[in-house]
Amino acid sequence: MKNKIHFKVCERQVKEKKQLFTAIENECSSIGYYDLPVQNVDSILNYTDTFEQEIENIVVLGIGGSSLGAKAIYEFLKPVKLPIRNLYFFESTDPLNIMEILSKIELEKSHFLVISKSGTTVETISVFKYLYEKEANPSSYTFITDEDSDLDKFAQEIGSKVFYLPANVGGRFSVLSVVGLLPLALCGVAIKELLRGSNAVKESFFNDGYLKETLLNKAIFYAKYHTTYNINCLFAYSETLRYFTEWYVQLWGESLGKKQRHSAFHVGVTPIGLIGPKDQHSFLQLIVEGTRDKSVTFIKIEDFENELTVPNLTLPHLESLDILNKITFHDLITMQSDSVIEALKEQEDIPLDEILIKRVDEESIGELIYYYELLTSLVGQLIDVDTYNQPGVESGKIILKEKLKNYQYKGKK
Amino acid sequence: MKNKIHFKVCERQVKEKKQLFTAIENECSSIGYYDLPVQNVDSILNYTDTFEQEIENIVVLGIGGSSLGAKAIYEFLKPVKLPIRNLYFFESTDPLNIMEILSKIELEKSHFLVISKSGTTVETISVFKYLYEKEANPSSYTFITDEDSDLDKFAQEIGSKVFYLPANVGGRFSVLSVVGLLPLALCGVAIKELLRGSNAVKESFFNDGYLKETLLNKAIFYAKYHTTYNINCLFAYSETLRYFTEWYVQLWGESLGKKQRHSAFHVGVTPIGLIGPKDQHSFLQLIVEGTRDKSVTFIKIEDFENELTVPNLTLPHLESLDILNKITFHDLITMQSDSVIEALKEQEDIPLDEILIKRVDEESIGELIYYYELLTSLVGQLIDVDTYNQPGVESGKIILKEKLKNYQYKGKK
Repeated sequence: MKNKIHFKVCERQVKEKKQLFTAIENECSSIGYYDLPVQNVDSILNYTDTFEQEIENIVVLGIGGSSLGAKAIYEFLKPVKLPIRNLYFFESTDPLNIMEILSKIELEKSHFLVISKSGTTVETISVFKYLYEKEANPSSYTFITDEDSDLDKFAQEIGSKVFYLPANVGGRFSVLSVVGLLPLALCGVAIKELLRGSNAVKESFFNDGYLKETLLNKAIFYAKYHTTYNINCLFAYSETLRYFTEWYVQLWGESLGKKQRHSAFHVGVTPIGLIGPKDQHSFLQLIVEGTRDKSVTFIKIEDFENELTVPNLTLPHLESLDILNKITFHDLITMQSDSVIEALKEQEDIPLDEILIKRVDEESIGELIYYYELLTSLVGQLIDVDTYNQPGVESGKIILKEKLKNYQYKGKK
Repeated sequence: MKNKIHFKVCERQVKEKKQLFTAIENECSSIGYYDLPVQNVDSILNYTDTFEQEIENIVVLGIGGSSLGAKAIYEFLKPVKLPIRNLYFFESTDPLNIMEILSKIELEKSHFLVISKSGTTVETISVFKYLYEKEANPSSYTFITDEDSDLDKFAQEIGSKVFYLPANVGGRFSVLSVVGLLPLALCGVAIKELLRGSNAVKESFFNDGYLKETLLNKAIFYAKYHTTYNINCLFAYSETLRYFTEWYVQLWGESLGKKQRHSAFHVGVTPIGLIGPKDQHSFLQLIVEGTRDKSVTFIKIEDFENELTVPNLTLPHLESLDILNKITFHDLITMQSDSVIEALKEQEDIPLDEILIKRVDEESIGELIYYYELLTSLVGQLIDVDTYNQPGVESGKIILKEKLKNYQYKGKK
């Protein structure tokens, strides 16, 4: 991958960058995601090999960090690399959504992955209960949870296969662990290639490669101006990256939206995922003319490896559009993103950068994922938050638990 | 629909509200969308009646305002009301996306709606050329464009049916015109019900109904604090509203992100669409603990009309989750949204409100649409922008045109 920064970074902050780099190096011993690119995936691949061809659907019961990463990668690759199995996600308690997914899958041709770090996620367990009543065969389920969680104990008791989350890997940083790798491998994704891509970014950052300076400079800028540019847009020029932007929104929003460690201040940079060229006709106006509160990162695919071309067709009264004739759609979408970038550069007060990934493959998405994980950790360090927790969602959970208890007590049903 | 405001509005701004209301009343003569709920739709319904059953797919070639509205309504209703035809959208130049849609539709069982106000939208015409080379039968196409546009002339020349956009209706306010109504009617949506819902909101606002005060108060608050709360989140508790949030993002972002009419200031409130409960596991942390730059509107569905229930199942080691047993998913998702709202209320400095719609039907989505259109117009008035133009996207288009010319000249292909 390449990353061109179009805003002015302060090259001289040598001491600041050194400090930041050291802080991240120190995190490596306590935060588990850093080393995921070099893990041994044999146990995952061996298990995948035991699956019969008759299993056509892999169905993930999981929400947030348990679903967004695998979904991002699966949907990215799908248009180019036909998956060997379909991947579905139950990630809501919306009854209409549950019914819709149920209508698409044959239970006997499906294998279910129940993914919950704590083992007590309300959305996941409520759907699991519903499915388990219909299909109680333990071999139809695989569980991914923390070792010794209640869900682990349950899975052991019924005799289903269990995988454990590696130590110190939070949900939103877990895509490169068994949480993402198992569903993806079962659908035919080359998970070693994925990790190879991630490891290339890791190596570049930690071993003085090109991305080290780039990431440090970018993180310092984002942190320094985080109250001015309190919104970060990721503008990806391909529909394939749509779910990647959702993964990024969770990673960035949940990691950086916090009370500071050493103050009572609320901080955070709000992530927004956009897809081009569609959002040129929706969100772009706001970027160009709206409040100067946004930094924007464009993602472009260098080679779509696709020759779909606008035919050489002149239409009466539409001759002015003959300039489109004989252009590959690949070149067209690239020219569209370049035009928007050039137009935005003229504004001067919108911090822009561009990420180029080579093509739609495992390696490229692996690079992107690790790049964004690192960037998140770096900004988190600088704005003085605990990047890896999410205490803000607890009070809603406590209120819900009370409501659930009262609901039972009243015996409405 | 109901709308409960949980933030403190200043009830005494009588003069300000009167002025605002008068300004909007005055707009009604020059801005076309206000009267769309009371239009005559016979020509649309009569045309719809001429379609044979063999046409299984309605395929919209359109982007932004030409696609987002119909998509929002179609996807909202789909899980409850099986459409009589499938609705597809070509809304990108991404070659992989074009190929993916092409793989799903049989051309001979499809009818194509080419929608472009100007008639020269690059994305729409490039895909149209591609399809027209494969299928040149004029009766397979219907065009929706401005009268006398080049696209109108082309359609007349080949003898296809053409509908015109009503006067003074911009793309993002066009969902209740033929732009949205034709594709929806062709898929079996009861468009009169849709308009009835919109008209109920219109009547309530313009004829001293309940929504008048609510909308005025809300708009004044949003405008007054638009630099503090420069982000507005729409948090909808149902997957069915996912594309409605995308429609809202365009409406809000493109209408309000502007240079002010009477100053050189850039203003705007950034829209963000969220879906619950999924985004409780993604974005919620940022709302609860992040920077206080967000107002949040929750949308809840009063009655999912669905009895899907968590079974009465006790699982070993998971007994603590028996509190979920015998709950309908409808009640569960409602309790989840209520819990989050209660938790956020405790924060006091996050402006919250709740919209309740009755059920998943045409009337309810018609209400929501008109409600948001009105709110956009109101806020636009107050922050002194031209709500109905989008000058910021022009310079990118000019650069693209230059690039396209040079591409041809160089004869790369």
